[in-house]
Amino acid sequence: MDHEFYMKLALDLAGTAEGQTSPNPLVGAVCVKDGQIIGTGAHLKAGTPHAEVHALTMAGTQSVGADLYITLEPCAHIGKTPPCTDLIRKRGICRVFVASIDPNPSVNGKGIRLLQDAGIEVITGLLQEEAEQLNRAFFHFINYGKPYVTLKAATTLDGRLSTQTGDSKWITSNASRNDVHHLRHIHDAILVGVQTVLHDNPFLTTRLPHGGKNPIRIILDRYLRTPKTANIVTDGAVETIIFTLDSDKSRTVFFEHPFVSIERISETAPFLEEVLNHLARRGIMTLFVEGGSRVHSSFINAGLADELYLYMAPKLIGNGSSLFIDEKRNLMADSESLRLLDVRQIGEDVRLHARFLKEE
Amino acid sequence: MDHEFYMKLALDLAGTAEGQTSPNPLVGAVCVKDGQIIGTGAHLKAGTPHAEVHALTMAGTQSVGADLYITLEPCAHIGKTPPCTDLIRKRGICRVFVASIDPNPSVNGKGIRLLQDAGIEVITGLLQEEAEQLNRAFFHFINYGKPYVTLKAATTLDGRLSTQTGDSKWITSNASRNDVHHLRHIHDAILVGVQTVLHDNPFLTTRLPHGGKNPIRIILDRYLRTPKTANIVTDGAVETIIFTLDSDKSRTVFFEHPFVSIERISETAPFLEEVLNHLARRGIMTLFVEGGSRVHSSFINAGLADELYLYMAPKLIGNGSSLFIDEKRNLMADSESLRLLDVRQIGEDVRLHARFLKEE
Amino acid sequence: MDHEFYMKLALDLAGTAEGQTSPNPLVGAVCVKDGQIIGTGAHLKAGTPHAEVHALTMAGTQSVGADLYITLEPCAHIGKTPPCTDLIRKRGICRVFVASIDPNPSVNGKGIRLLQDAGIEVITGLLQEEAEQLNRAFFHFINYGKPYVTLKAATTLDGRLSTQTGDSKWITSNASRNDVHHLRHIHDAILVGVQTVLHDNPFLTTRLPHGGKNPIRIILDRYLRTPKTANIVTDGAVETIIFTLDSDKSRTVFFEHPFVSIERISETAPFLEEVLNHLARRGIMTLFVEGGSRVHSSFINAGLADELYLYMAPKLIGNGSSLFIDEKRNLMADSESLRLLDVRQIGEDVRLHARFLKEE
Amino acid sequence: MDHEFYMKLALDLAGTAEGQTSPNPLVGAVCVKDGQIIGTGAHLKAGTPHAEVHALTMAGTQSVGADLYITLEPCAHIGKTPPCTDLIRKRGICRVFVASIDPNPSVNGKGIRLLQDAGIEVITGLLQEEAEQLNRAFFHFINYGKPYVTLKAATTLDGRLSTQTGDSKWITSNASRNDVHHLRHIHDAILVGVQTVLHDNPFLTTRLPHGGKNPIRIILDRYLRTPKTANIVTDGAVETIIFTLDSDKSRTVFFEHPFVSIERISETAPFLEEVLNHLARRGIMTLFVEGGSRVHSSFINAGLADELYLYMAPKLIGNGSSLFIDEKRNLMADSESLRLLDVRQIGEDVRLHARFLKEE
Ligand SMILES: [Zn+2]
Ligand SMILES: [Zn+2]
Ligand SMILES: [Zn+2]
Ligand SMILES: [Zn+2]
Repeated sequence: MDHEFYMKLALDLAGTAEGQTSPNPLVGAVCVKDGQIIGTGAHLKAGTPHAEVHALTMAGTQSVGADLYITLEPCAHIGKTPPCTDLIRKRGICRVFVASIDPNPSVNGKGIRLLQDAGIEVITGLLQEEAEQLNRAFFHFINYGKPYVTLKAATTLDGRLSTQTGDSKWITSNASRNDVHHLRHIHDAILVGVQTVLHDNPFLTTRLPHGGKNPIRIILDRYLRTPKTANIVTDGAVETIIFTLDSDKSRTVFFEHPFVSIERISETAPFLEEVLNHLARRGIMTLFVEGGSRVHSSFINAGLADELYLYMAPKLIGNGSSLFIDEKRNLMADSESLRLLDVRQIGEDVRLHARFLKEE
Repeated sequence: MDHEFYMKLALDLAGTAEGQTSPNPLVGAVCVKDGQIIGTGAHLKAGTPHAEVHALTMAGTQSVGADLYITLEPCAHIGKTPPCTDLIRKRGICRVFVASIDPNPSVNGKGIRLLQDAGIEVITGLLQEEAEQLNRAFFHFINYGKPYVTLKAATTLDGRLSTQTGDSKWITSNASRNDVHHLRHIHDAILVGVQTVLHDNPFLTTRLPHGGKNPIRIILDRYLRTPKTANIVTDGAVETIIFTLDSDKSRTVFFEHPFVSIERISETAPFLEEVLNHLARRGIMTLFVEGGSRVHSSFINAGLADELYLYMAPKLIGNGSSLFIDEKRNLMADSESLRLLDVRQIGEDVRLHARFLKEE
Repeated sequence: MDHEFYMKLALDLAGTAEGQTSPNPLVGAVCVKDGQIIGTGAHLKAGTPHAEVHALTMAGTQSVGADLYITLEPCAHIGKTPPCTDLIRKRGICRVFVASIDPNPSVNGKGIRLLQDAGIEVITGLLQEEAEQLNRAFFHFINYGKPYVTLKAATTLDGRLSTQTGDSKWITSNASRNDVHHLRHIHDAILVGVQTVLHDNPFLTTRLPHGGKNPIRIILDRYLRTPKTANIVTDGAVETIIFTLDSDKSRTVFFEHPFVSIERISETAPFLEEVLNHLARRGIMTLFVEGGSRVHSSFINAGLADELYLYMAPKLIGNGSSLFIDEKRNLMADSESLRLLDVRQIGEDVRLHARFLKEE
Repeated sequence: MDHEFYMKLALDLAGTAEGQTSPNPLVGAVCVKDGQIIGTGAHLKAGTPHAEVHALTMAGTQSVGADLYITLEPCAHIGKTPPCTDLIRKRGICRVFVASIDPNPSVNGKGIRLLQDAGIEVITGLLQEEAEQLNRAFFHFINYGKPYVTLKAATTLDGRLSTQTGDSKWITSNASRNDVHHLRHIHDAILVGVQTVLHDNPFLTTRLPHGGKNPIRIILDRYLRTPKTANIVTDGAVETIIFTLDSDKSRTVFFEHPFVSIERISETAPFLEEVLNHLARRGIMTLFVEGGSRVHSSFINAGLADELYLYMAPKLIGNGSSLFIDEKRNLMADSESLRLLDVRQIGEDVRLHARFLKEE
C-alpha cells in the first residue's frame, strides 16, 4: 500500500463515471488514515456533490489527521456547492495528494494555494499523466472552449463507407455495432449530416442490452431539409438540435416538436466552429460524429477532429465513398497525421483507435 | 456494461476495505439508472454507514426507479443504523441484485423477503462465489462463532523454523518480511506463544512504509511468564491480551498497564477453543498466528487452523524445530491436507498460500 | 514427451525452411527410439535430400525398431532421389506418424499404403491441421496448378495507395518496409505492373540487414513498355520475366539482357491465368504481388488472390488511388470477403493479414 | 532474420537431445547462405557425428561461402570422428559464429584459432550465456571431473520425506511422479542408498507413457547388504553398479548377475568423492540422486550437490525424516544457500527447482 496504490484507486473510482459528468471532469477521491481507507468517492454527475464531499462524508469524524488523494485539484470557488478546499480544511485533513491541476481559470492552482495557506501539506503530480489522459476531453473543453470531437467510421479494407449506390448495410458485424452503442452511451452528443437523416432515417439512440444514456442529437442541415417525419424529430427519445443557416424559412418550422430545437447560424460565420461553440455553451463536452464523407472531411480539414474510431470489415468493394475527401492534398507529406492508440479485433472486424496529431 | 460489470465493481469497492470492517463483512454497492452509475459505496468500518447508505446518499433523488447492486443481502434489523431494506424501499429502488445471502441468523434471507414484500424485484446469486470468497472470514465467523485463523511460518526448504539453538534471524528476505507486515495490517489480531515473547521480545506491530493498522496482540501464556518489561507490555502501541490459566497469581498482575489485559481460562476448559470464543465475543473476526512449532501444532491438531502462509527461504539447515509436530500420525494418510491457493516468488523466497481442508 | 511433442518438433524443423523449398513442400522428420531422439531432418531445398533421408542418416544403425514422425506422407515415386518409403522400410522403422497426406497425385496415399504393405504401422492425422496450414501454398499449388498469390498493399487509413498526383513516398514507416522485405525473401516470385516500373523504377530485390533471397521478378507489360534502362533489366540481381501480348515487336527485344526473358501470351487467352500457369510450370509456388490499383483489382476479380497483407499508416490523405477498383459491385453484399488471420502494430503502422474466402 | 535468430535455432536444435549425449555436450549447428538455411544439425549421441557434420552434410556443395552458427566451439582433435575444424575449412565456410568456448583442455580455443588460421572469420560470444546454461552439466563435468549432481526429494510442507514409521506412499500426486520419470529419462545415472533398496525394493527405471531411457542404477552400499533378490539386481532392465567398501565379502558376490557390477572403495578414501570419480571415468555426466535423508545430507555436506528438485505436497504430517540432517550447523548463517530457478505447480503439488550456491 503506497501513495500510487491509493491514487490509482481514486483514478479507478473517477473512471466509473465516464461519460456521465459533463461538463464537469471525472474526479475520484480516497481518504486514508493509518493505512486504512476511511472514505471513497467519485463525482458522478454535474450538480451532484464533488468526489471530495463523498469521501469526507464517508470518513466522518475520522478525517481529522487523515490523508486525502484526489485526481484533480479541489475547487476553490463557490459553485453549486461550497468550495471543497474549505471542506478539506474544516475536516482536519493534514495532507493532500493531487494528480492533476484544474485547468479551469477559476481554479488553476488556486485550490492548492488555499490548502497550503491553511497549513495543509500538498503533494502534486502523482500519476499526473494518467489523470490527464482520463480527463483529456475536459482539458480540451476548458483550454479551447469546444467539445472534444471523436469521429467514427465503418469502412471496408479499401476504405469505403458505402458502395457507389449508397449501400452500407451492413459493413461491419454485430459485435462492432454493439461497440459503437457503448461509445454513444459515453458521449454527450452525437452528430450527423442531414444526408444521413434523409438516407437512413436513423434514431441515433443508444441501444445496449442493459440500457444506456442517449446522447443529444445534432444535425448539420444548412438548408433545413430535415423532414418533419424523421425519427429524430418524432420519437421524443432525447433532444435534437438542428443547425441551419439563418433564413426566413428556418424561423418558422418545428415549433410543434418540443424535443427539436433549431439553431440559426449566420451565413458569414464559419459554420462548424459556430456549431461547436454553441454546443460548448450548452455544456456539451464530448461530441461523437457518425458522419459520412462530407461531414468527416469538414471536421478534419477545419482541424476540429480530436480522435477517430475506425471499424474495418474484412471486405473489399472497389467503389463508393471514402471516410475523407480532400482534393487539395497532392503529396503524402500533406496528409493528416494521427497516432494509433489501440488496435483490436472486434468480432470479425478490426477496430483502430487513433488520435489526431495537431501542430502546436 | 452488463450486470456482471456492475457487480464486479461493487465487489472491487468492497475489497478496498479488506481488514478494516471487522466484525462486519466487506460490502460494496453500486446504484445504476439508465446505464449510468449514480451512486457507489463500500462499508469501510464497523459503526459507520453501510455500503447501501453511501451509494443511495450519492444517488440522491435520482434513485427512484434505479437498480442497486449489492455484494451482500441488505440488513433487515435495526442495528447501529436503521435497516438498509427500509432505505432501499424508501428511495424507490425497483430492482436489487444480490451476490451472496447474509449468513447472520438475524438476516439470512429476511432482507430479501422484505424487499420482495415491498414489491422490489430481487435477483440473487450474481457472482456469488466471488462474494463468498471475499467474505470467507466473515462467513466462518458467523457460522462457527470463531475467528478465521491464518497461520504464518517462515522456514528453510527442509522445513525448519529455526536452528537447534533457536536461531532464526533472518531466515527470509526483506521482501518476505514486508509482505508479512501487510498481512498483519489486514488482520484484527495477531497471536504468539509466550516462548516467542521470552525468546524474541517482539513488538508484533505493523511496520509498512506508509503506516498501517496494528492488530490486537494475543499472547498464549498458561503460566503467566510474560515479563513486565516485554515490549508488548510497555510500548502502548495497541492492546495486548494475555490468555492464562486461572490462578491466584494471574489475578494480581499487570494492573498498572492500561494496554494489557489478562484473560483467565479454567484449567478444565479446552484452552485454545476458549481463547477463540473469547476473541469472537470481542468481535475479532480474523486472527493471524505467528506461532512457533508448539502454537501452530496446537491450532492444527485442534482443527482450528483455516489458512497457511508459508514463506520458504532457499536454504537448508539440517536441524531445528518444524512448523508442525505431532507424534501420533504414523502414516502419510494421517496427514493434515491442504489445498494450494497460490504460489509466488517474493524476493529470493517462495510464498505458499494454502487452505486447510476440513472434513465436513 | 508424447507423440504431439515429436510431431511439433518435426513441424518446427520443417518451418525453418519457409520460402526455400519451392516447388517442394516444407517437410520435417524426427526419428525416436526408447524416448530418445536419434535423428532429425528437414527438407531445405528442391534437389537436396528429403527430410526423412536426413533424419535416417543421422539415426544410422539405431533406426531399427524406431518410430519416425514426418509432417507429410513420404514420397513413393522415384524422383531426383529414391523413394523415401523404400528407405524407411530398409532402415527398419517399425512405426510411422504422418501429419498430412501428400496431395500430389503421384503420392496421395500411395506412400502410406507402401509402408503398410511392408508391415509398418502407420498413424495419420497427428497435428494435421497445423501441417496443412504450414504447407497451404504447396497444397494450393498441387490442387490448382497455380502459384499461391499474396497481395501486398500499403495505404492510408482512408484506403489510398498514393495521392492523386501519384505520390506514395513514404506512406508507411521503416519498420513496415523491413517487414515487406522479409515477405519478399520467403516468396519465389514478386510481381508488379509496368506502371510501377515506369513510375518508380524499383529493384524489387530483398534488402534485409543480413542478406536474403531475391524473388524472381515478374512484370505484367501487355504492350512491352518496360524501358531497357529499367533497374530490373540492367541490375542482373535475379531473373526478370516480362509477360506481354504476342506481337511482332515483342519478338525482337531484350535479347542482349541475359537476366531478362519475354513471355508472349496470345491476345485471345485470359492473360492473368496464363501468367500463373506459366509460373507454375516454372515451379514458382508462391507469388508476392506488390501491385497498384489495377494489378490488385485484376487478381481479385479473377478470383486469383489468396491472401492479403495490408499495411496501413495512421494518415488520412483524401484523394488518390485505392487498393481495389471495381465499378460493377453495387451492394455491400457483392463485396469480396476475407477472414482476418492476424492484426499487429508494426512501428507506427498497423498490419492486417487476411485470407480471401472463396466459394467452393 | 538476424544472427541471434539463427543461433537461437541452433540452441533449440541442441536442446532436443537433452540427456542423450553424455559424456558429450549438447551442440547444434545451422548453416546459412544468402539468408537461407542450407543445413541444420544437432549432436544426438556420443559416437555419432557432430552437429557440424550433419549441418554440412545437408548443405552439400552449397556450403561454399556460407555462414555457420554453432553453439560450441568446434572440435580440433582427432577423436572418434575427424576434427570439425577441418571439415568447416574444407567445405568453404567463410564465417563461423560460436556461442561458447569448449572448456575441454584439448580444445579450449584451439578450434577457434585453427579456423582463424585458415582465414575464416570467427565471431564468439553470441548467446553465450544461454549456451553455457544449456551445457552446465558438461561444463561442470569437464571443469571438475565429476558428474553434475541433482538431488530430488518429495516432502510435505513441514519438510518430511516420510513418517516416523517410514511411510512415504504417496506423498505427492501422480503428476509429480510423472515429472520425476521425465527427469530420470534425461539423466545418465540414478543413485539411491541401500536403505531405499531394502525398504522399497524399487526398480529405478523410467516409466513414461511413450517409453524413455533408463538411467544406470547406482547403489551406495558400504556393507553390501543389497539382497540378491532385489528388483534392481534381477530385472535386467539396465546396468546396476553397487559401490561398497573393499572387503573379502565384496569380492565374491553377484558374479552370476551380468547386469550388476560391484565397485570396491578403500576404507581410507573419501567414499562419495570416489564414487563420483568412478562415475566420471565411466562417462556419466549427470547423476540424479533420489536419496533419503542420509544420502542427500552426505552429498550436501560434501559440497557435491549441484541442483535440487523439491516436490512438496500440500500436507502436514508432524514427524518423520527430513531431506537434510546436519547437527553441526547452529546458526541460520551456517545454512546451505541455494538460488531458486523455477517454482511451479504440478498437479496439486508445488515443485521448486534450485541451484546450490558454492563459494568460489
Ligand atoms: Zn469541489
Ligand atoms: Zn445495512
Ligand atoms: Zn521423399
Ligand atoms: Zn566436432
